[in-house]
Amino acid sequence: MKNALHFVGLDVGGTTMKAGVVDDAGQPVAEPVNLPTEPERGQELGLERMCETIRLAVSEAKLTLDQIAAIGVATPGTMDIAAGIILDPPNLKPWRNVQVRKHIEKVFGLPTAFQNDANAAAYGEFWVGAGKDVQSMVLFTLGTGIGGGIIIDDRILEGRHSHGGELGHMKIEMTNPRLCGCDRRGCLEAYASASSVVKRTYEALQTDSKSALHGVCRTKGELTAKDVFTVADQGDELARQLVDQTAFYLAVGTTNMLHSIDPDMVAFAGGMTAAGEPFIQRIRHYVRELAFPVPAEKTEIRYALLGSHAGFIGAAGCGRQAYQRSLEKNKR
Amino acid sequence: MKNALHFVGLDVGGTTMKAGVVDDAGQPVAEPVNLPTEPERGQELGLERMCETIRLAVSEAKLTLDQIAAIGVATPGTMDIAAGIILDPPNLKPWRNVQVRKHIEKVFGLPTAFQNDANAAAYGEFWVGAGKDVQSMVLFTLGTGIGGGIIIDDRILEGRHSHGGELGHMKIEMTNPRLCGCDRRGCLEAYASASSVVKRTYEALQTDSKSALHGVCRTKGELTAKDVFTVADQGDELARQLVDQTAFYLAVGTTNMLHSIDPDMVAFAGGMTAAGEPFIQRIRHYVRELAFPVPAEKTEIRYALLGSHAGFIGAAGCGRQAYQRSLEKNKR
Repeated sequence: MKNALHFVGLDVGGTTMKAGVVDDAGQPVAEPVNLPTEPERGQELGLERMCETIRLAVSEAKLTLDQIAAIGVATPGTMDIAAGIILDPPNLKPWRNVQVRKHIEKVFGLPTAFQNDANAAAYGEFWVGAGKDVQSMVLFTLGTGIGGGIIIDDRILEGRHSHGGELGHMKIEMTNPRLCGCDRRGCLEAYASASSVVKRTYEALQTDSKSALHGVCRTKGELTAKDVFTVADQGDELARQLVDQTAFYLAVGTTNMLHSIDPDMVAFAGGMTAAGEPFIQRIRHYVRELAFPVPAEKTEIRYALLGSHAGFIGAAGCGRQAYQRSLEKNKR
Repeated sequence: MKNALHFVGLDVGGTTMKAGVVDDAGQPVAEPVNLPTEPERGQELGLERMCETIRLAVSEAKLTLDQIAAIGVATPGTMDIAAGIILDPPNLKPWRNVQVRKHIEKVFGLPTAFQNDANAAAYGEFWVGAGKDVQSMVLFTLGTGIGGGIIIDDRILEGRHSHGGELGHMKIEMTNPRLCGCDRRGCLEAYASASSVVKRTYEALQTDSKSALHGVCRTKGELTAKDVFTVADQGDELARQLVDQTAFYLAVGTTNMLHSIDPDMVAFAGGMTAAGEPFIQRIRHYVRELAFPVPAEKTEIRYALLGSHAGFIGAAGCGRQAYQRSLEKNKR
């Protein structure tokens, strides 16, 4: 145990940062810890808070820092992954040009990886989650927005300009393209994210008088994507249509991955996965309609497994890769 | 010269097969040779014809077979790239389950690579053409259909089921999706291939009375994509709209690559590239509208350089990779 390898993964979100220690097989050795990000308090405090969260995770794992082999940090974009820098992320305002990797590396004196949060989550699922037995995987993370990550042969497709796997912003509609959160039009995210489901629902309710969603709306004051899925499960026709359309949009996104990346597996993560088996079956159904027969039949389409732990586990996995690279380098 | 490495590349099309010898730097040492494919005469003859074309290319290069280090063969899909098998390609009817790699390997006793033709063309451009100075490239080949190839760090993204880079069949439209040659709907190919340009032109002429394209149609009896581009160059408003729309569709496809692969370069090959600088400028213009600022600004968008030679040069390059792998294997 004393000589076993351990890695810390830190997943920085707009509200919370979460860190945890995993072993060389990607298994968390303790529950992850969370601290508030408070980006509005500035990036100096942000960097300090990252270090604090990492230390707390190590202590939670009943380890000391000299037992940690490497660290991985994942943050939302925009970023320069290769340079290890946060650029100007909308979720971390007013941070700007933050030298994350350099700082963490200096403070802890350990090999440090820096990664996009959606890429890290995809890598976590690939390493020890839904994709642990496959060679290549595409992950869609369905939340307020849609994130994505592409892993091929243990390698994250980061892209030349750190925009690899920005799958929420592939264009799927030209005639009547919806406005996306990115201020451009026709993106998958504008159709199939949780917030888009809600938006489409309010639109649909304007020309409907029978749906049970009206009642939910009156009682709760507002709707969530979860409400739409729940009411659909109860047999409401409008809600079922909205859920079915969402499955179709995600099938379009999936098909575009089948016809470009052609991975072993496409997995879905995020809150919407609570919709369960019927929803993923509808996605599979539409993929069979849209895609070429061989990838449509052979690509595994399923839900992710690690929930909100995927990010820190994947970040730790990126740290593990940085550790392995440092060994290679020392050999030469 | 006697000890220099040489590789044969064979590019099998539905009508013609083309082969040529290139040196270790990817430079053709002679003009490539062509023989008719005549797929209707059966796959036995097809395999023989492949061998004949390879021998002819070697002789055209004034070399003998013992001076050849490896062979690469590219064919249209459907196929199983890893297994080296042609499955059931619409362009090579009635061939079915043809063991191409095994056969060529056996006949010539040389390391042999098997590859999809669009992937091979992309690899050719990456190796010695438009992409020779970049690390990653996406190639769109605009012909009757739209082919694609994705190269990242000297490696072709073949995909798990040999459907990597089938970029003509990414979905870009849901509301009013055009029927594609693949019998499915909404594919890029149904919008921006040469035959789709012609189809869209005939449709547009039905509600137009002023375009000069009516005259071309009467004189020639039918239209080609080239006619549309030529008449657009002469200032015809309808033709200009059709060309501009085509640039928009290709920009949508390009944007989807910028937001998933995020390569150094996106290149366009095929007959339509004769449209010259104004057309590629329109594609760039729309990419800046559609894509995130950083990849939109930094990704090089340009025409391919090797014309119809890209396929055999790329196939030879794949042969070269097979040769390098065989050296690695012998070392172990």
